Amino acid sequence: MKLNIALLAGDGIGPEVIDQAVKVSDAIAQKFGHEITWKPALTGAAAIDAVGEPYPDETHEVCKNADAVLFGAIGHPKYDNDPSAPVRPEQGLLKMRKALGLFANVRPTFTFPSLLDKSPLKRERIEGTDLVFLRELTGGIYFGEKGRKDNGDTAYDNCVYTRAEVQRLAKKGFELAMTRSKKLCCVDKANVLETSRLWRETVQAMEKDYPEVEVSYEFVDAVAMRLVQWPNSYDVLITENLFGDILTDEASVISGSMGLMPSASMGAEVSLFEPIHGSYPQATGLNIANPMATVLSAAMMFENFGLMEEGKAMRDAVNKALEAGVVTEDLANGGKVYGTKEVGDWLAANV
Amino acid sequence: MKLNIALLAGDGIGPEVIDQAVKVSDAIAQKFGHEITWKPALTGAAAIDAVGEPYPDETHEVCKNADAVLFGAIGHPKYDNDPSAPVRPEQGLLKMRKALGLFANVRPTFTFPSLLDKSPLKRERIEGTDLVFLRELTGGIYFGEKGRKDNGDTAYDNCVYTRAEVQRLAKKGFELAMTRSKKLCCVDKANVLETSRLWRETVQAMEKDYPEVEVSYEFVDAVAMRLVQWPNSYDVLITENLFGDILTDEASVISGSMGLMPSASMGAEVSLFEPIHGSYPQATGLNIANPMATVLSAAMMFENFGLMEEGKAMRDAVNKALEAGVVTEDLANGGKVYGTKEVGDWLAANV
Ligand SMILES: CC(C)[C@H](C(=O)O)[C@@H](O)C(=O)O
Ligand SMILES: CC(C)[C@H](C(=O)O)[C@@H](O)C(=O)O
Repeated sequence: MKLNIALLAGDGIGPEVIDQAVKVSDAIAQKFGHEITWKPALTGAAAIDAVGEPYPDETHEVCKNADAVLFGAIGHPKYDNDPSAPVRPEQGLLKMRKALGLFANVRPTFTFPSLLDKSPLKRERIEGTDLVFLRELTGGIYFGEKGRKDNGDTAYDNCVYTRAEVQRLAKKGFELAMTRSKKLCCVDKANVLETSRLWRETVQAMEKDYPEVEVSYEFVDAVAMRLVQWPNSYDVLITENLFGDILTDEASVISGSMGLMPSASMGAEVSLFEPIHGSYPQATGLNIANPMATVLSAAMMFENFGLMEEGKAMRDAVNKALEAGVVTEDLANGGKVYGTKEVGDWLAANV
Repeated sequence: MKLNIALLAGDGIGPEVIDQAVKVSDAIAQKFGHEITWKPALTGAAAIDAVGEPYPDETHEVCKNADAVLFGAIGHPKYDNDPSAPVRPEQGLLKMRKALGLFANVRPTFTFPSLLDKSPLKRERIEGTDLVFLRELTGGIYFGEKGRKDNGDTAYDNCVYTRAEVQRLAKKGFELAMTRSKKLCCVDKANVLETSRLWRETVQAMEKDYPEVEVSYEFVDAVAMRLVQWPNSYDVLITENLFGDILTDEASVISGSMGLMPSASMGAEVSLFEPIHGSYPQATGLNIANPMATVLSAAMMFENFGLMEEGKAMRDAVNKALEAGVVTEDLANGGKVYGTKEVGDWLAANV
């Protein structure tokens, strides 16, 4: 297969971890006979510094014309203190999601047996956890009309959803559930919000098309509780943008493997793959960041092209590295510490 | 002191746990020479069944004219399956909050040494946790304009805040922080929402009036993570209505003592005190529900009248009962099991 991949390294440790994912992906391509062309483009603080814009038009062109986007991380402390500053890296992120139509953010939370003890939760609570959130990513209160009235003394944010937006996301949820344990949880706040009632009635109406899927409906506050109590009781969860923002982050810390969690943002045309850890500015350039989440994100990318064996080979390599103790300092646990680059080299040699 | 207390027992186990709190409060009143007049009134499913309305006008009259409201729980399974049903117990709750102007929901999360092992979190993560959320309760997306357009295919919910609403809540937060460790965390999503930017700038402007309080600003998704990772790193947190709904529920399960957590909803005129556990319908009438959270809510009520010793006596009695193993089945851990009523009797005899 010929693959054209936009490469958005971004800020902080982004470039370092992206380099390793490229190296491992190239090793896979060689092994399985694919040809990957990487198209680097600017984003985040790096793009603001270079061209004054966190998601420049040229970057959008590159992404639009690619088969997929591999993304590092964005965010830089110099933009952190003033959320109302006119240009911020986050705006680039939101603009990119909207412009590329990345409507479904896929965030798995799973456990690695060797990392279970890193979880803040007790082992018996977390064992066997393997859930996936599908978060709606281009609608809701993030993109509704917002502004001020009364000389700035009143602020408002409008949350809007259409039935078609809910259907599009829910369809992905039902389909994903069909490939897993056929359990789907719709997370909403239908006892208070009209948008949630639209979500719920839309999903309810789709149930008949997927008779094998067992659907449950839970309020967002109840899910925030149960995620901590019994994370392994969930499988596929679908939810709107803001609830998804909060719950996927909550879910990311329960497994103890946050540094290893990949994600995907799916659009109708192009999809984007990125580690969920941030830009971790303090570690920039130190060759200490863990590249495994980015490598696993690249594995999701291969699988999304239908290249299941390729994805599995990458995941197997990560598992082998964990077992062999070829890990960065966050996972070293007093044992030998490898650098970002060295872990990447090892993975590339072992796929 | 002469106290006039509206008594809203509500649904499920509400009446049983309220009975115990009344018994213990009466014992306190006798010991300290106060006179409490209890004014029972209908609410929740119980009120719908009786008069077709979850928060009837007569109940509002009783609450408005009381010195405080002691509340049990509302919610009944027969209203659970259809969130768009025209009359639901939750609507009574929202109507009551608005009508009584209960703008600040106070939700502490603390630990009891003897219960630490009930937490889903590891002991070292949870030890020493003692935090309080102040959740704004009468504004935001709960009460903004909501509805449908496009023949029902588009739904919207508007989130609105005024500077005065933020100031009122934040003032309580600063004041509470002054009585504790002088640390205040403002939880928002100022990188995305205009209402959050209003929250942040309003709190920032108030900092100068409380020079001793150290204020931090954190995004809601980051707080959802840190609450699980290091709950004991927080002290007082202030936040808007919907974020507060999600985060206070998340916080409630981390300590392992959810069945014991009290809460208060403060208004300018009257305040309301209630356990955070729900109506637990399956346990109704079985004399198995844990009354301690309701007793601790009554303790908060006494303290809110400035009756600190009275509150402390109630809290001491609960601690003594826990140590003596005078507990309901949720806490019995294989030991002797006491009934709801028996725990109440013991507490009343030991204040
Ligand atoms: C940076 C921010 C705008 C973003 C979001 O809220 O979507 C982030 O928290 C995320 O989840 O990707
Ligand atoms: C029942 C519901 C409307 C309510 C809320 O969301 O405020 C509840 O979850 C709470 O937190 O008291």
